[in-house]
Amino acid sequence: MLPFDVGDPVRARAAWSRIAEPGDEHAGAVVRELGPSGALDWLCSSAARASGLAPPLRQLVERLAPRLDGLDIRRELEVLQRLGGHLVTPEGEGWPTALDDLSVRAPFALWVRAAAPCPLDLPRGRSLAIVGSRASTRYGETIAAEFAFALAEEGLTVVSGGAYGIDAAAHRGALAARGAPTIALLAGGVDRLYPAGNEALLLQVAQTGALVAEVPPGSVPGRHRFLARNRLIAALTSGTLVVEAARRSGALSTANHASDLLRPVGAVPGPVTSAASSGCHWMIREGQAVCVTTSAEARELAAPAGEFAAPLPGGPPGLLDDLDPVQARVLDALPLRAAAHVPSVARAAGVSEADARSALGLLELAGRVRRRGDGWARVAS
Amino acid sequence: MLPFDVGDPVRARAAWSRIAEPGDEHAGAVVRELGPSGALDWLCSSAARASGLAPPLRQLVERLAPRLDGLDIRRELEVLQRLGGHLVTPEGEGWPTALDDLSVRAPFALWVRAAAPCPLDLPRGRSLAIVGSRASTRYGETIAAEFAFALAEEGLTVVSGGAYGIDAAAHRGALAARGAPTIALLAGGVDRLYPAGNEALLLQVAQTGALVAEVPPGSVPGRHRFLARNRLIAALTSGTLVVEAARRSGALSTANHASDLLRPVGAVPGPVTSAASSGCHWMIREGQAVCVTTSAEARELAAPAGEFAAPLPGGPPGLLDDLDPVQARVLDALPLRAAAHVPSVARAAGVSEADARSALGLLELAGRVRRRGDGWARVAS
Repeated sequence: MLPFDVGDPVRARAAWSRIAEPGDEHAGAVVRELGPSGALDWLCSSAARASGLAPPLRQLVERLAPRLDGLDIRRELEVLQRLGGHLVTPEGEGWPTALDDLSVRAPFALWVRAAAPCPLDLPRGRSLAIVGSRASTRYGETIAAEFAFALAEEGLTVVSGGAYGIDAAAHRGALAARGAPTIALLAGGVDRLYPAGNEALLLQVAQTGALVAEVPPGSVPGRHRFLARNRLIAALTSGTLVVEAARRSGALSTANHASDLLRPVGAVPGPVTSAASSGCHWMIREGQAVCVTTSAEARELAAPAGEFAAPLPGGPPGLLDDLDPVQARVLDALPLRAAAHVPSVARAAGVSEADARSALGLLELAGRVRRRGDGWARVAS
Repeated sequence: MLPFDVGDPVRARAAWSRIAEPGDEHAGAVVRELGPSGALDWLCSSAARASGLAPPLRQLVERLAPRLDGLDIRRELEVLQRLGGHLVTPEGEGWPTALDDLSVRAPFALWVRAAAPCPLDLPRGRSLAIVGSRASTRYGETIAAEFAFALAEEGLTVVSGGAYGIDAAAHRGALAARGAPTIALLAGGVDRLYPAGNEALLLQVAQTGALVAEVPPGSVPGRHRFLARNRLIAALTSGTLVVEAARRSGALSTANHASDLLRPVGAVPGPVTSAASSGCHWMIREGQAVCVTTSAEARELAAPAGEFAAPLPGGPPGLLDDLDPVQARVLDALPLRAAAHVPSVARAAGVSEADARSALGLLELAGRVRRRGDGWARVAS
């Protein structure tokens, strides 16, 4: 009935990615139960007699059957081949097993456009999604590019959505590094370099990294496909970092998917006066995201516990530095420019003479005070 | 032995605030056990024979006895009176019971300089500490002033430390409001308007609010007194908000005291590129502070659970607004400028015709689509 060999599971999967919308759980369940070829056989034979099926299956067939008309997935596969791309499926090599966490919502196949080999099946801790608003600020773009650069230099694959704003900045930052490639997960077909203003950037990504879609060439990037695509960004990576997002940004849906998949989520804070950071602040405040302020902290997000640990900036807080309270009081009690004797220092500091003497000795060892005559004086700091 | 009546507990407390350094736990314990007058009696009589005492008490006496020489607290009380101030003690009226949470580290007395009555014993939820770095930025100062203004307008007393930077901005913001007064807790005596550059501001605070110190007039604001003073800011208030703080800022010690006292702690995020926000980010990241981005969220910090609740900004996140997935797909499937028939819409959307019809009906009710001929078209948004 279909003009191509339905028995080939790779072609059958390609066909499923054309027939069913991304994330269609019922289609996913049927493919899982019957295998891609068996499920396609079943759909073709059920198309004419859907009314006899139980309600959920009947609805599925009614939904999908119209798309069987004129379906010839060989055309889309040829387009992909002409673009230098290839199809990745669970039956072949390089399938990212991380996507299996999506269960019946996993993609049927990945349409990959990459000039050079670009691994998609990344070990845990070796990739991070960096996403955010299209309506970004210079601040957010700078952070996204800097973090992506630093992570890529360290060999982490930066994954994003190829959109304007934060996504583009993340890809750009990663492209500038000499480390790992960057992957753009597109909502439409990999033949459509969308949005048009990012065409040059996406071509660059395809040169050293990969453009990836779960829908075949020719597919339009509709709004619901953007939202469905976000689950792939979350599932493919070891963690998701939101750099800038307003309260209604689609980037928050990527973060939600990551949480659902038990992947760590981070958000970069910004000025509270910036609407572009309001979604990040909301996630941090609600405990839905970790506050991430450096590329090291971003890396820690992606990495399994203990493998990488972001260094603590500075030491422990405190004005006294390394001084204990008695030493601090004794140092305070010393006049600024003159020397003083132990009894007057002790009295001013409110400590016993014995304690003052001992503190002065320790402060002398630390180079903070020195003996002058039979008294003590500060060392200019 | 002392030139004033030790039997008067108020004078005895004033004397203790002169003799012992802020937060001296051993002195606090003795005063608690023997009462202020009894403890002073004991100290005077023990001064000459300290060697016969058990070690902790001996050290206490050795530490404090030198300060009994020439002690005449009437002088300091006269200075306070000349400044229009008064002493507040647990024996008299207006003692802030919140300070009792400090136990043996509670102040012996409060030296208060206020031209008008300014309540210190604030009901729970009616005060907030707003603190931060002296080395602040314009951003942090603006936020501190705005939040303080909004809280004071709503009748919350804003408490801070009278320092340059965030403290000054918080006082200024509160002074500009017509609501509650603002309180500055000073590290030195209330006769010393320190730092000098804030003299005019502190005089203004004394006019409508209060300058408060636990040390008598004439006391120098030494570094350890600043740190000890921070515990009072934390204890006096229903919550502490850090607006800007570097990793080693003293403001973090105020936050630590607040946590120790089970008072809520908040921190305002800022650009990750700003060192002045690094301490805030660290506290948020480590779960030591709640992320606070609006004055309503700051108020929620101070208020008992449920009494105030900051409104959620915007609605729940999501690009689809109020559309369910089928409606979104159907709307996407409609051509931008032309009309389309139900079968082609259903096919493009990947839904059954029945579902497409139902979705179009709902979209029509929502004013998103309209009938054109026997097809459907988008309504320009």
